[in-house]
Amino acid sequence: MTVVSAIWHGGDLDTAKRLFPDAPDPWLDLSTGINPIPYPLPDIPASAWQRLPGRAEEAGLLAAARRAYGVPADAGLIAAPGTQILIELLPALGRAGDRIAVVGPTYGEHVRTWRKAGHEVAEVQSLAEAGDARVLVLVNPNNPDGGIVAPGELDDVARRFAARGGLIIVDEAFADFEPGTSIVPTLPPSTLVLRSFGKTYGLAGLRLGFAVARGDLTARLAERLGPWAVPGPALVVGTTALADRGWRDAAARARAGDAERLDRLLAKIGRVIGGTSLFRLVETEQAADLFDRLGRHGIYVRRFQDQPLRLRFGLPAGEAAWSRLAAALAG
Amino acid sequence: MTVVSAIWHGGDLDTAKRLFPDAPDPWLDLSTGINPIPYPLPDIPASAWQRLPGRAEEAGLLAAARRAYGVPADAGLIAAPGTQILIELLPALGRAGDRIAVVGPTYGEHVRTWRKAGHEVAEVQSLAEAGDARVLVLVNPNNPDGGIVAPGELDDVARRFAARGGLIIVDEAFADFEPGTSIVPTLPPSTLVLRSFGKTYGLAGLRLGFAVARGDLTARLAERLGPWAVPGPALVVGTTALADRGWRDAAARARAGDAERLDRLLAKIGRVIGGTSLFRLVETEQAADLFDRLGRHGIYVRRFQDQPLRLRFGLPAGEAAWSRLAAALAG
Repeated sequence: MTVVSAIWHGGDLDTAKRLFPDAPDPWLDLSTGINPIPYPLPDIPASAWQRLPGRAEEAGLLAAARRAYGVPADAGLIAAPGTQILIELLPALGRAGDRIAVVGPTYGEHVRTWRKAGHEVAEVQSLAEAGDARVLVLVNPNNPDGGIVAPGELDDVARRFAARGGLIIVDEAFADFEPGTSIVPTLPPSTLVLRSFGKTYGLAGLRLGFAVARGDLTARLAERLGPWAVPGPALVVGTTALADRGWRDAAARARAGDAERLDRLLAKIGRVIGGTSLFRLVETEQAADLFDRLGRHGIYVRRFQDQPLRLRFGLPAGEAAWSRLAAALAG
Repeated sequence: MTVVSAIWHGGDLDTAKRLFPDAPDPWLDLSTGINPIPYPLPDIPASAWQRLPGRAEEAGLLAAARRAYGVPADAGLIAAPGTQILIELLPALGRAGDRIAVVGPTYGEHVRTWRKAGHEVAEVQSLAEAGDARVLVLVNPNNPDGGIVAPGELDDVARRFAARGGLIIVDEAFADFEPGTSIVPTLPPSTLVLRSFGKTYGLAGLRLGFAVARGDLTARLAERLGPWAVPGPALVVGTTALADRGWRDAAARARAGDAERLDRLLAKIGRVIGGTSLFRLVETEQAADLFDRLGRHGIYVRRFQDQPLRLRFGLPAGEAAWSRLAAALAG
């Protein structure tokens, strides 16, 4: 895997605007895997902005997250201002000299943060290739190809790692809308799972993420975050949204339908090789040309430095956006 | 200095309610140094909640903070979701074996985070006692006694530390309302300054803090925070508020007046030995009794494990709160 100093990410519309200064504004940003139909913001009391976040408010958020994610009663759960800061802190769970295996290609931040901390990181193609690495990182479902390792298979691997003092990190950022993929309800030992709030609920600006694990793993991360890590407004919005099972179930169905509709559009310009309910990955010889054509139409999709034939498409929202995408794809 | 596993903080009203279950509710919380008259929240566009925070939005916040704090053009400035997370990351700027001196008694988190990272930490009474420590931490104005080291004196010490490869950390959490105390406008080398948004603007739940320094110090902290560290709503509110010089100047005058009024009340029950425009520190033989009496009246003030004769009072807001405090102090 090529590691570059600045990782390309979706969501940076400023860059798209610089690349295509003559494109129509507003842009249609399909470069992320963020639900384009956000959870409706609840009322946020003034005290949530004004006071330091209280223990009772944080406990309320964690209780709602336990139910939403099916966290076993004897497992630890912590909240953070975004999953990214947890990814930054994960190498603190490593030991000097640890070898790290990241199943990839995948979300680039995992490789970056472990390397930054001085660890030797190998990108492997599958769980079976992890060898004797002490830490294994898996994004499940994977971003960007949507590949899923079933909980049963992952559980076997996790128990083998645990038996020899290893650690498995499972980034379930896109698991909410993919039933049956999460390992949280049957959490094995020495397995730390990341969950992300913003993508599912369409509120990525809120910054809210979680870590789940047995033993002292979450407590060690919490000690590095320190007190008052999650802002008051995020505690209010997160608690309300995570408790709203009806909204989440309806959104899962609706986004799955959107993903099928997107696949039908994308089949005209390439081969859909994977994805989740929130994004689809296309392979085509015309990827570079297509990125440019969409950019000139003010449509921003995700390209990949090390996979130049692939493009990732987020979901449009609303008929005008769907029509705009269809017209741009048609030429 | 006694280091305890759980540091006592203000602002944890849940604890006060457990201590005094029969107290009248709502409580009057004077346990923090947070401005009780908050900055009025500006409109927050839906995109700030929904999209990942963009580089342009973060650049806007930093530009406003540069002007508000008088940051020299050639110094680095970064934003974080609260000053606390920066305090947690500061030991990353240390080296194995570094000796750390913290001028105290002061805000307990500085000693805690450096010790947690494995450093030898000495609490010293003044800058002069720092000896050959490589890192010196000063809270200026100090919390809770309001002691101020003038920028000229601090500048001399900072240059001596820089000359021998040392580092000075200045936590200016309470400097906004104390004109002339900040070292930011004349920032010496090897000096890292923390600034806090929430106390001045009465929006502690927002979680927003800054670090300022020359050289690569801020870049090293930013790399540990990772991308999208500050939530979208905090970018909007922070940018608007920091650009509003008129509000800040008026608030500084008003809070200074409140502090004088509070001193007149407190003079009846003890000796006011210091403070800032946002809190006052009282010494009295009756501190423990007074804490209990106020608690039974539903008034929560800050006490100190290692200074049992001292209480810290935040500012009341509104005539009803002032009257309630006056009545409780009277018996």
